[in-house]
Formats: sequence, structure tokens, C-alpha cells
Amino acid sequence: MRDTDAWVTGDNAALLTDLYELTMAQAYFDQGMADEAVFSLFVRRLPQTRNYLLACGLETVLDFLERLRFTDDAIAYLQEQGLFKDAFLDSLRRFRFTGDVYAVPEGTPVFENEPLLEVVAPITEGQIVETFVMNQIAFQTVLASKAARVVKAAAGRTVIDFGARRMHGADAAIKAARAFHVAGVNATSNVLAGRLFGVPIAGTMAHSFVESFDHETDAFRAFMASYPETVLLIDTYDTLAGVRKVVDIAKATGPDFKVRAVRLDSGDLVALSRECRAILDEAGLDHVGIFASGGLDEHKVAEIVAAQAPIDGFGVGTAMGVSEDAPALDIAYKLCAYAGEGRLKLSTGKPILPGRKQVFRRVEDGTAVGDTVGRDGEALAGRPLLQPVMRGGKRLDGMAPGLDAIREAAIQEQALLPEDISAIAPASPSYPVSISSKLSAYHAEVKARVGAKP
Amino acid sequence: MRDTDAWVTGDNAALLTDLYELTMAQAYFDQGMADEAVFSLFVRRLPQTRNYLLACGLETVLDFLERLRFTDDAIAYLQEQGLFKDAFLDSLRRFRFTGDVYAVPEGTPVFENEPLLEVVAPITEGQIVETFVMNQIAFQTVLASKAARVVKAAAGRTVIDFGARRMHGADAAIKAARAFHVAGVNATSNVLAGRLFGVPIAGTMAHSFVESFDHETDAFRAFMASYPETVLLIDTYDTLAGVRKVVDIAKATGPDFKVRAVRLDSGDLVALSRECRAILDEAGLDHVGIFASGGLDEHKVAEIVAAQAPIDGFGVGTAMGVSEDAPALDIAYKLCAYAGEGRLKLSTGKPILPGRKQVFRRVEDGTAVGDTVGRDGEALAGRPLLQPVMRGGKRLDGMAPGLDAIREAAIQEQALLPEDISAIAPASPSYPVSISSKLSAYHAEVKARVGAKP
Repeated sequence: MRDTDAWVTGDNAALLTDLYELTMAQAYFDQGMADEAVFSLFVRRLPQTRNYLLACGLETVLDFLERLRFTDDAIAYLQEQGLFKDAFLDSLRRFRFTGDVYAVPEGTPVFENEPLLEVVAPITEGQIVETFVMNQIAFQTVLASKAARVVKAAAGRTVIDFGARRMHGADAAIKAARAFHVAGVNATSNVLAGRLFGVPIAGTMAHSFVESFDHETDAFRAFMASYPETVLLIDTYDTLAGVRKVVDIAKATGPDFKVRAVRLDSGDLVALSRECRAILDEAGLDHVGIFASGGLDEHKVAEIVAAQAPIDGFGVGTAMGVSEDAPALDIAYKLCAYAGEGRLKLSTGKPILPGRKQVFRRVEDGTAVGDTVGRDGEALAGRPLLQPVMRGGKRLDGMAPGLDAIREAAIQEQALLPEDISAIAPASPSYPVSISSKLSAYHAEVKARVGAKP
Repeated sequence: MRDTDAWVTGDNAALLTDLYELTMAQAYFDQGMADEAVFSLFVRRLPQTRNYLLACGLETVLDFLERLRFTDDAIAYLQEQGLFKDAFLDSLRRFRFTGDVYAVPEGTPVFENEPLLEVVAPITEGQIVETFVMNQIAFQTVLASKAARVVKAAAGRTVIDFGARRMHGADAAIKAARAFHVAGVNATSNVLAGRLFGVPIAGTMAHSFVESFDHETDAFRAFMASYPETVLLIDTYDTLAGVRKVVDIAKATGPDFKVRAVRLDSGDLVALSRECRAILDEAGLDHVGIFASGGLDEHKVAEIVAAQAPIDGFGVGTAMGVSEDAPALDIAYKLCAYAGEGRLKLSTGKPILPGRKQVFRRVEDGTAVGDTVGRDGEALAGRPLLQPVMRGGKRLDGMAPGLDAIREAAIQEQALLPEDISAIAPASPSYPVSISSKLSAYHAEVKARVGAKP
């Protein structure tokens, strides 16, 4: 097998699953077990450096569930493993996801133990999709949650995603750009994310361009010839000398000078931005902005903003692109009901809330004051966050909002968060999430029943 | 655009690039600049918790370079941006990568400032491929390097990749499994990685399976009915009660009992493994192994091994799957020559070594004692690590080793590392990497020339 075929697509994504999902599926098949199961996707504990998570990835998951098929190629590979009987493989050929899905919309802030998504389906269907559903919701939520912090730190200044080169692979690169945009990032440098998702694309120039000319000034003039309204990268050799060259070009060019900004990519960004601002202003170039990049994260952006450095926008790469301080979540996708009965495991330190659930968010005077996780069907105070999005394997009408709508909703939902929760610093106490008395009682009941099993 | 099309494949990967690569390409085009450039891919500094990196990702990159095309769809999208002229877009339609590539083989340990790969090509070609090349080599190297530590810690015990659900997306999930296998991981739970790369696949059972039965014993018996030689997960309710149920089943089953192992997934793994071992041994089940998982990383695995806990294999997920302590590298892909002249930038704290280079590794008595980065063509002591792998855009014969050969080479290359470098603890001093006097002199010469530019 050459890497030529080594891409995940809608055609082979059915195999993007842990082997045990398929071996368990065959065991269910062998036992004739096909009752309805409820699986719940939730985060057990937030990372220490996150006050909330921004749910993301649902669109990918719904699309996957609608398209899920085992192709002849997939069946042939499974057959080779010597683990599966023909009757089961035949059932996989006919496999479709026919279940219902309830989920919080993309862009919703969520907290620990709150279901982001619940799948209600024949147990085999809910089981087989586990790995893919977790993979996509987990990493897109990780990245959206990180980006929300950077956007918060930027306090209204432009933020552009420069992270594609250091993200974990091609799928991450495109979907992170989308997740970042949901979280409020203005644009991405990733062209394919623009093509596939309509994320606005942006870019400046690289050091290599400057280096390929004998003189920095020649590089600037050449780039301006192709893009009069461009952003010029000025730190290749000496930042202050670079900005002075821009000023000289502006003077020589006169009213045709339309360069929008200069970019700093190294050194003391606060000090350099002030010196560049002064040089530009002195030359009457107060309309030329200053854009900064180079090792930025939410803390460095916040420092720059707090210092009132004259920086108009930030290019943020690695730290946001991999969510460097918290690249993974303690996320779980757990069976919590089967054949009409609540289920849970009792494994040390890994609590599960049984049955179908709903999350209620109470908002007072425009601020979210607390959530309650209750049983499905309870009428508790607050707005229910989980919505039916798929029924019988088909996406419900109106449950495919466009990216702009998702982004707008994310901004509005985050605006409801208490100030200390949306802040970058760790909030103490954390956002209050309680369990309804009915759910607590049901948990105790199921636990007693399960614990009594020999 | 529906997510239905939202996959990266060989057909659209040309757009997996930062916008500035394409705007620079047009500026080169406008300027008639098409001379040969050298771009060098290297890591500036190792993460604090890495003594070496294990190079990975070359296969993906070479395949990408061979297949790289801008489709009509890509051209149409670029046209919509209002940034590109028809003549340039026409040139993209005909675009092929025609350059040469030199690279260290996958599975080679590398250190800071050592080129993993150098591209020699007309400048536009070297520029456009930057983002994709970095994305793939960086993350695959990140993950292989992490996995090498887990394998080292396991000291010969089996390690299985369970990370797909928490990795960053679908591309990461398949290629991480491959990178892990290169680094010595025995198998993966990810079925698609098996299908696409031939990585051995493995799996046990999940708590959901146990929970879906009224009695744990029924679940075990059902799974054994489908897979007599299986691994049973025993911590769903109570680990020691679970292992006793296995013993009871074994006694009732007699000589037909073929279960290979039990799996622990929570609690104090060292203590529980000893108790389980004792219970199994007492029942004459000394051939039943113990497999452990649940929040493992190289440090926890090393503790378990140091405690001589009777654990035969490890399932490692999240921490390895995202390289949690070091999810990104300070990796760069820099222009270091153009039109026959060495090039570099002088940006603060980001040194570049100019021109084509070679890395020489000196091995004495079976141990690598130091590397020297020299100019291409120098004949220094030691084995040259960079090999020509592509010429004129075509992969050279013999430069597509299979996964088994890469893995074997990785094992042999790592066996050459000094003990403190291959150890998990931070090595001090770090592995010695020096710059040849010719390269130093050339660096000084280029720096003086560049610094003298007005």
C-alpha cells in the first residue's frame, strides 16, 4: 500500500474505529443483542487552564453518521483479519446509522460532566461510531476552547490563525481553522480551510521572500508591485531599519503608497511596536498598521494588550494550533442506558450519569449563573442546551447552520459567561454545575442495582 | 459547502498551504524569479522533555510532492479571491514539483539544528510546499518521538496504541499509529491505520460491553463465545471480583479455557496487578496475562516496570496520542540558498545555517558519540545521514522502504544512542552536535554579506 491512498475520506472513515468496536459489534451480533442504547459524550474534568470549553465538531460528526458505510474494500480488509464471520460481515455491508442524536450546538460553552452529545441507537450502531465521534468532537473542542482564550486576550484586535504548519496533520489543519473561526478568530492562513469551510483567508509574506532578493527594499517594492495593499514583514534583518525602508518607499511612492501594515515576527514586540509606531507616525504613516506574530499565545497577547502596545492584530500559530497547554481532554463516550435501563460502570474515579440527560443553563440579567444536569424530560429552570439534531439517521431540518451563524451564536453564548469564567486566569470557584435531585436519585438507584449484580 | 467534501486528499492537498505561499509565488512569477532555492527543515531547539527526536513523515511528503497538482476546483477558488492574475493561475495549472529532496530516513534520531530534509527546487516550488511539508514531518516526528519514550519505558513489554479517540483529527489518528509503530509500538487499535499502512491491529473489549449485560460473568462468557482467545476487561465494577469471575469461568470451562489475558483500566495498577496475578496463579492460570491501560504515559509505565508489577503489556492512549508534554516542535523550513548564494535571516534568536548541508554521525564501539553539521560535499568523520530521496520530482529507486524496514532501522538507529540520551530522564549534557568549521566560516561569510546590505 502506497501513501497515495493514505487519506481518510467519507469512503473509508467507517474503519476509523478501534478494533474493539467491531469485535464487540460481532459479539452483540452473535448474542442477538440489538436493543436501544444511550451513549453520552462528556468531559470528566476541565483542564486546569480552562474555565470552560467551547463545543465544536458536531457538523463533522453528523455528516459522518449520515454517510457511514462499510465498503467492499473495508469488508475485505476485515475478512483478512480472521476475526469475523461471514454473517457478521454481511451485516456490516448493510450497516447504516439509524439512531437519534441530541447535542449542544457548536459554539456552546460547556463544563465538566455536561453531555455535549447523546446518541440513542441500537447498541451496535452507537458502539461502532464511538472512536470517530470522540476523535472529532474532542479535538475540535480542544482547539476552539484554546482559540476562545486568544480571542478574549486580543480584546477586539484582529486574530489570524497561522498554525497549519505545526498542527497535527491535514485534518486538524482544516478543522482547526474552522474551529478557531467559530471561537472568534477572524481569518486563517490555511487556503484549504477557506475552500472547504468558507473561513476567510489572509496572509502576509515570509522571510524567504525577503531573503531571495539582494536588498530588503527590493523585496518590499516587488511585493508591493504585486499587492499594493499588502502587509510587509520587516524583521528579516533589523526591524527598525526595516520600518525605515518602508518609510523611504512611502516617501518615494507618494499618494500611491497603499501598504496596510508592517509585521513584526521576533524580538520584544511591545518595545519594537512602539518604536515602529513612532517612526511611522513621524512620517505621516499613521494609517499603516502594525501586525505581530512569533510564538504568541493568550498570555503574551494579553501582556501586549495590557501594555497598550500599538499592535493592531496578531498572527497566532503553534500554541493555539496544538492547544499547547492542554492538547487533550478527559473526554468520555459512555454507555449510560441499554434496553431501557440506566447503566454505568463503577470503575475507580470515573463516574457516569445514567440515562438520557438534559443540561439547563440559568441566565440572570444577561449572565449565566449556573447549569443543572437533569434527566431527560425534567422541566428545570433554565434553557435546555441539548437539542435533537438527528432522527433515524437523518439530520433534522434546520440543524445544519452555516459557519457564520455558528460563529455568531458562539459569540453570543460566550458573552453570557460570568467575567471570571470567560477570563484567561483560572476562575475560583469554577462555574457552578449541579446534578438535579431526580438524576442524583436515578444515579443512586442504578448504582445500587448494578452494585448488587453478582 | 457541506462537510461531505471536507476531507483532505491527494486531489486538494495543494491548497493545504498558507495563503502567503501562493501570494509570494505570484510575486516571484511577476518578477520572473525562478532560480534554484534550497529550503532546510530543522528543529531549532528540542523540547525540554526530549533528548532526541525520531524523524517521521517523509513517506507522506514524498508522495505529496509526486502527486502535487492544482485542480480546476482549486484554481477556481483562488480566482475568486481577487488576488491572482490569470497568467499566474495558468502557471499553477501546469505546476509540478520538479525538485530534488535530501532527507534523513524515517526512524532516524535527530537533534537540534540538524536538517531532517532539504528541498532543492525552483524557488516557487520550494515555497508552495512549505506548509504541507512542515505539517506532516512536524507532527509525525512529534508523535514518533513521544512513542519512542513509551516503548523505552516499557522495557520490552508490549505497547499498544489506544489513542485514536483523543488525537487531533482523522489524519493524525492514522499517521500517528504508523509513527508509533515506526518508534517500536507493537500494534494499534485503529483499524484504518491497519488497512492503509499495514500496522498490526489489536483490541480487547470496552466497559460498555460489560454494562450491556445484566451480569459481568454473562458478558465475559458472551465475549469468549465469539473470541475464545480474548482479553477480558475486569474493572467495570470491582477489579478483584472481576478476576475471580474469570477464575470461576476458567474452572467451569476446563481445558477449553483459552483467554489470553485480563485488562485493568483504573485504580492502582501496580497493586491490582499483583493481587490479580496472585489470584490467577493460585487458580493455575499462570498463562493468563495481565494487560493495563488508563491514563498511562512513559513515566507511569516506567514506574510500573520499576516496581516489577506483573503487567505484560500496556495500552497507551491520550498522553502518547497528542504528545501531551510536548505537542509541538520549534520546527522551521527556511530558505538557506537562492540563485547559488547562501541566504539567511538575522531575526533575533532564530539562527539559520546557510546552504546545502549534511549531518555526520560518529559511532564508536556501537555508540553514537556526536554529530557534525557540515556543508554539503564536506568529507567529515562519521556516517552522512541525509540521503537523496527524490530527483527531478521523482522518488529515487529504493527510496520507498516498507514500514517493517523503517521500523527495523529505527530500532537499530536508536540502539546506537548513548544510554542517557535514550533514557526518559533529561540528559545533561545533551547529545553533542557541532557545526563544521567550513559551515561556520560560510555562515560568517553569508552573515557579513547579508548584514552589509542596505
